Amino acid sequence: MSLLDRIRYCQERDTARFRRFLVTGRPLGWIAQELGERLRGFPGVFAVSSEAVQLADGLDSAERRTRAVGDVMLRLREEGWFPGWRGEAFAVAPSFHAAPLLQLERAAARAFGVRCYCVQLNGIVERDGELQTWIARRSLSKPVGPGKLDQIVGGGQPVGIGLRDNLIKECAEEASIPAALARQARPVGAVAYRRQAGDLCDDEVLFNYDLLLPPDFAPLNADGEVAGFELWPLARVKAVLAESDEFLFDVALSLIDFLVRHGVIGPSDPDYIAICEGLWSAPPEGAA
Amino acid sequence: MSLLDRIRYCQERDTARFRRFLVTGRPLGWIAQELGERLRGFPGVFAVSSEAVQLADGLDSAERRTRAVGDVMLRLREEGWFPGWRGEAFAVAPSFHAAPLLQLERAAARAFGVRCYCVQLNGIVERDGELQTWIARRSLSKPVGPGKLDQIVGGGQPVGIGLRDNLIKECAEEASIPAALARQARPVGAVAYRRQAGDLCDDEVLFNYDLLLPPDFAPLNADGEVAGFELWPLARVKAVLAESDEFLFDVALSLIDFLVRHGVIGPSDPDYIAICEGLWSAPPEGAA
Repeated sequence: MSLLDRIRYCQERDTARFRRFLVTGRPLGWIAQELGERLRGFPGVFAVSSEAVQLADGLDSAERRTRAVGDVMLRLREEGWFPGWRGEAFAVAPSFHAAPLLQLERAAARAFGVRCYCVQLNGIVERDGELQTWIARRSLSKPVGPGKLDQIVGGGQPVGIGLRDNLIKECAEEASIPAALARQARPVGAVAYRRQAGDLCDDEVLFNYDLLLPPDFAPLNADGEVAGFELWPLARVKAVLAESDEFLFDVALSLIDFLVRHGVIGPSDPDYIAICEGLWSAPPEGAA
Repeated sequence: MSLLDRIRYCQERDTARFRRFLVTGRPLGWIAQELGERLRGFPGVFAVSSEAVQLADGLDSAERRTRAVGDVMLRLREEGWFPGWRGEAFAVAPSFHAAPLLQLERAAARAFGVRCYCVQLNGIVERDGELQTWIARRSLSKPVGPGKLDQIVGGGQPVGIGLRDNLIKECAEEASIPAALARQARPVGAVAYRRQAGDLCDDEVLFNYDLLLPPDFAPLNADGEVAGFELWPLARVKAVLAESDEFLFDVALSLIDFLVRHGVIGPSDPDYIAICEGLWSAPPEGAA
């Protein structure tokens, strides 16, 4: 296994198992065949063909779409379609800064294969000129990736809150980082992927941030989502990423970007170019 | 104009004006129609069709290809085809770490549209917690981009020298940065583009490096390629990039990456996602 394997994993595509999800005629997601067939049961909300799932004609505003689709999602949740239900509304839009065409619950958004956004934080400590970073072990109760290794803070981007405020909120909940410290986090770029496998098409943009933490700061989880934290040298992060799938697969993408930016992965690596180009392997914004 | 315009400029494609350049059957470059027609005059070296330029059958080793093509290049140079002739050999290979299939003079490599590699350095100074960076004004005698703004150090990657040694050499020649200081430069990622316009298909991977310079260090050009240096706040770099084409167009790509990594361009910019994804807009390594 290698770092490039982590990236290739994020690039798997199997469009045959999915049909497009269109809103106002725009392809904004991918729905697994089985879920698509189930949506035929709600003809007042979904117009389903063998190729695509669209919304019924009458749903001509974001409010109407959100309410009608939301009602169906609650019903399907009872049938067990969305195991990771969170009660967190995600925006479905043609681009990040565009007005949402509807809102979808987080687990449903994932099942609909719409582009999701999240904030990912590298909590960095400098000791004797060497960088280390805080690594979290995800709680066994997390619906996605229980027990996997993670960055110190990371979270989906729900509607109704800005990226930076969301990051500050997650910093408090996940690692008890005070707001004044969290505000020093620096945006350092975004990475993205689309992975179509099994019943899920994950289409995600990760907004990455670096935060230099005082050497005496120790993260403390406040929301039960983290089992524990450890401070790791960057070389260990690289080795564990390359040699195992211990890290949550999308967190791996954010961490590889971190290691590239800090020179821990360098051009003497034969995969360097493939790694750099693979950090953005999702289709361009607005493209099908 | 905007930062995104700088990126879009690097993405212009007009394949109709070019034909493929194939070596051992692999598409490794793009040659403008007019140059392709001229190469018909050397049937012992080039097999030219309306679609592609290949090498003649007998040229079955890198040495033979380099010598035969080199002789033609010298002849065409006399005819004025390669104004920026440098006498610097570039490798033509299916990927960066692969063995070269032939070597081509730098200006000829550009006219053949083969992928070129270069090292780009951000010379950073920290003052009162704020970052500044050294900006160079290219000499008016440079064959490419005379008088344009540039990073403190940048250079093509010729054969026969490693990336880091090349960077250290360029640091000495272009800015009199001592080797001991230059060695502290940190690789921070690569960006890439392919731009097909006019008679040139530029296909380039830029290996980016950051180097923190002492506040009392002042660069001094030693090879006549730089007219002068100035220390700029990052906000000024961003403004001039967005509002003018003063910077050499590929240097702009490297500098936008620099500004993204240092948080000067952040996610509140409506073009942030398009900018991040545009930093690698060349086709994947090994792809046509």
